[in-house]
Amino acid sequence: MRKEFDQLLRFASISADPSHRGELVRCAEWVANFLEEGGLEVELWETSGAPTIYAHTCHLDPKKPTLLLYGHYDVQPVDPIELWDSPPFEPVERDGEIYARGAQDNKGQLFYTMVAVKRFLQKEASPPINIKFCIEGEEESGSRGLAGILPQKHRELQADSILVVDLGIPERTVPAITLGVRGLLAIHLECTGSNRDLHSGSHGGLAYNPNRALVELLAELRDRDGRIQVPGFYDDVLPISDEDRKALDLSFDSKEYRREFGIEPTGGEPSFSPAESMMLRPTMEINGLSGGYAGAGFKTVIPAKATAKLSCRLVPNQDPKRLFKAISTFLHERCPKGIELSISFHSGSPALRCSPSAPIARVASEVYTDLFGTPCRQILAGGSIPIAEQLAVAAGGDLLFIGLGLDSDSIHGPNEHFGWDRMELGVELIEAILRKVGEL
Amino acid sequence: MRKEFDQLLRFASISADPSHRGELVRCAEWVANFLEEGGLEVELWETSGAPTIYAHTCHLDPKKPTLLLYGHYDVQPVDPIELWDSPPFEPVERDGEIYARGAQDNKGQLFYTMVAVKRFLQKEASPPINIKFCIEGEEESGSRGLAGILPQKHRELQADSILVVDLGIPERTVPAITLGVRGLLAIHLECTGSNRDLHSGSHGGLAYNPNRALVELLAELRDRDGRIQVPGFYDDVLPISDEDRKALDLSFDSKEYRREFGIEPTGGEPSFSPAESMMLRPTMEINGLSGGYAGAGFKTVIPAKATAKLSCRLVPNQDPKRLFKAISTFLHERCPKGIELSISFHSGSPALRCSPSAPIARVASEVYTDLFGTPCRQILAGGSIPIAEQLAVAAGGDLLFIGLGLDSDSIHGPNEHFGWDRMELGVELIEAILRKVGEL
Repeated sequence: MRKEFDQLLRFASISADPSHRGELVRCAEWVANFLEEGGLEVELWETSGAPTIYAHTCHLDPKKPTLLLYGHYDVQPVDPIELWDSPPFEPVERDGEIYARGAQDNKGQLFYTMVAVKRFLQKEASPPINIKFCIEGEEESGSRGLAGILPQKHRELQADSILVVDLGIPERTVPAITLGVRGLLAIHLECTGSNRDLHSGSHGGLAYNPNRALVELLAELRDRDGRIQVPGFYDDVLPISDEDRKALDLSFDSKEYRREFGIEPTGGEPSFSPAESMMLRPTMEINGLSGGYAGAGFKTVIPAKATAKLSCRLVPNQDPKRLFKAISTFLHERCPKGIELSISFHSGSPALRCSPSAPIARVASEVYTDLFGTPCRQILAGGSIPIAEQLAVAAGGDLLFIGLGLDSDSIHGPNEHFGWDRMELGVELIEAILRKVGEL
Repeated sequence: MRKEFDQLLRFASISADPSHRGELVRCAEWVANFLEEGGLEVELWETSGAPTIYAHTCHLDPKKPTLLLYGHYDVQPVDPIELWDSPPFEPVERDGEIYARGAQDNKGQLFYTMVAVKRFLQKEASPPINIKFCIEGEEESGSRGLAGILPQKHRELQADSILVVDLGIPERTVPAITLGVRGLLAIHLECTGSNRDLHSGSHGGLAYNPNRALVELLAELRDRDGRIQVPGFYDDVLPISDEDRKALDLSFDSKEYRREFGIEPTGGEPSFSPAESMMLRPTMEINGLSGGYAGAGFKTVIPAKATAKLSCRLVPNQDPKRLFKAISTFLHERCPKGIELSISFHSGSPALRCSPSAPIARVASEVYTDLFGTPCRQILAGGSIPIAEQLAVAAGGDLLFIGLGLDSDSIHGPNEHFGWDRMELGVELIEAILRKVGEL
């Protein structure tokens, strides 16, 4: 099992970077083969980008409940590479944790899910449920490939319940299911000045510096209290409901956060608690800034261009396309003379929620409670699974988010890791859920 | 001559980057050897950084006038390398222009100066003047090496006049001498948040994004009219004097500027003309911005750090150390909770001026007028020669800035170039100045 996991981790399946296309395809083929060996029928679906793996148990029986399992085999880029203690695509184990890009997100969680299904099928000659897999290769870069083919795949993906196994639990000993994710809007910004890089002495006082335009525009997006200033940004945000307050665990351990990440949770709006800011409020983050010379020493340059990557996390009822227009208008109206501003839509997806009374939510909650020996909490994720909403529509069932990730796994950052103890727990978790869904 | 120039251009003598140390040393040795072959006595002075080449004519005679020629053999970094049409350290000629990093700044101008001195000495068995060279290797990164040894070199560098051959003329057919340069203050900024890169979904609303802190802090440095908001920033700036208005050419061709650089000159303070903003007013420019993921695609990260490089051009009477403290205090006072701000001084130098009535200014002005057949203008440079003020003190003479650079040479940017016609003109220019100084 460990050897096979290492094989999966060694694919540098970075979907954001077009130069890694070959690794994505090889990784998809490995996953397809792994499932085939477990007795599933497997198809590789071509998309506009990385292939999607579709697999299902043989002899689908419409009288049995159907569970669709979703995961992804692509990973985030590895920058800043210099902060990794070991190469990101050469998995190593230290103190029971496997270190590699994707060790948790999502190869680790995908791996225990696949192993659990294979074990379940080994034990069950005639399984009481239909199991399907939909495993994509562009989750980390907007899921465009899968999104493009989903409208044609309703029949194949039909399911009573969908489990997206890409999330986590609040603490090692605290179980939770995730009833929803935030939506995402991702935008590229580019400020262009002169037709070439300029000397900041000869041109300082003449050329409007694109770096200056960029920081001025980005700073205008918020007021001093951190409230986003784009007209209409909060218009569709619903007030926090009593139902949410009752169902959701809105506790937050600032001391633990400081211990783990070295900071106070000061990034949200002052009128909301940290948990509210992270689960129930939209955000706007600058994910990337670049302009001029950032290397060793100094270069007195006025660059021709400066760029930023900006993303918003959205809550239910917010429409990414409408917000893109609002942000775009806001920034264009403020672009200074002498600078050309180009804004492009990278990807967008609305937020998604699962009812706490959905059968899959009840089943998963019971299994987590049994396995951990303590009541399973209900939470919302701050992150996004961009494809979730379309997947729920295509499958036509209830979609629940689960997983065994921890905040400390450093997903998307250097030294991502996942514990082997959780890998084994994950196999148990999924097997127990399959068994309980079969009893529905 | 062309073959030797190519040799000089092939050294990747980037002083900003410590990994290029070897190239700097080899380049210095090449320059030293080139001067020695011309009959000069040469010394390589060790410094804390790149070596300085000191050379002088044999048998220095205290009764003759002494001229010190200053240049530098180091060059700017080459980023963004992808915008170069040919490799920066493989000189090529296109339409009479030599393309290479340093083709103009300063290897081109240094080369014609050295060639002119060698020719002058070939013709003059007993030259009427003492000629000295001081050629450093860290002009593009703060001149720290030379600055460190200058206090011990007053005797060697003593001169009646100093020519810094590192500047330019307004247009191909318009001669000018440069009576002054702006000072420079260069600063590194670093905003640090959490102890690692974070996922912008799980931490958006919790962590204060260092990119956000950085753009907010940088944007606060100016008001909407572009006036710098740091208390005291303009306190020591003298009003533009009638003398300056009379002596200086304050014309500016916005149409030509737009044609050459593709932009309007909108970067200055609205109450000053473009030429005033560039010559007589201080500036503040963001030379580098970096934070998070700026590669292909998207990465939804809240980075642990975001950095900026900031520099100010200073006018006479402004003190770089005092301004560094003022900027530092201003930014620290505004740093948000949850972010640690680190500000470090990179380099600083005051502005410097030469009187239009200094003998070297009169001589150079006459030679330019003769050579171009049109009256020589008097201008100020927007840029800085950080070492100039200390060099003037060490040599104890009048320091004038000259050269044959054009704004369109793309110094500090991709595809830097210098015309071979100007190379030949430069040899004539320097030879004529040497002859005229001998007649003083």
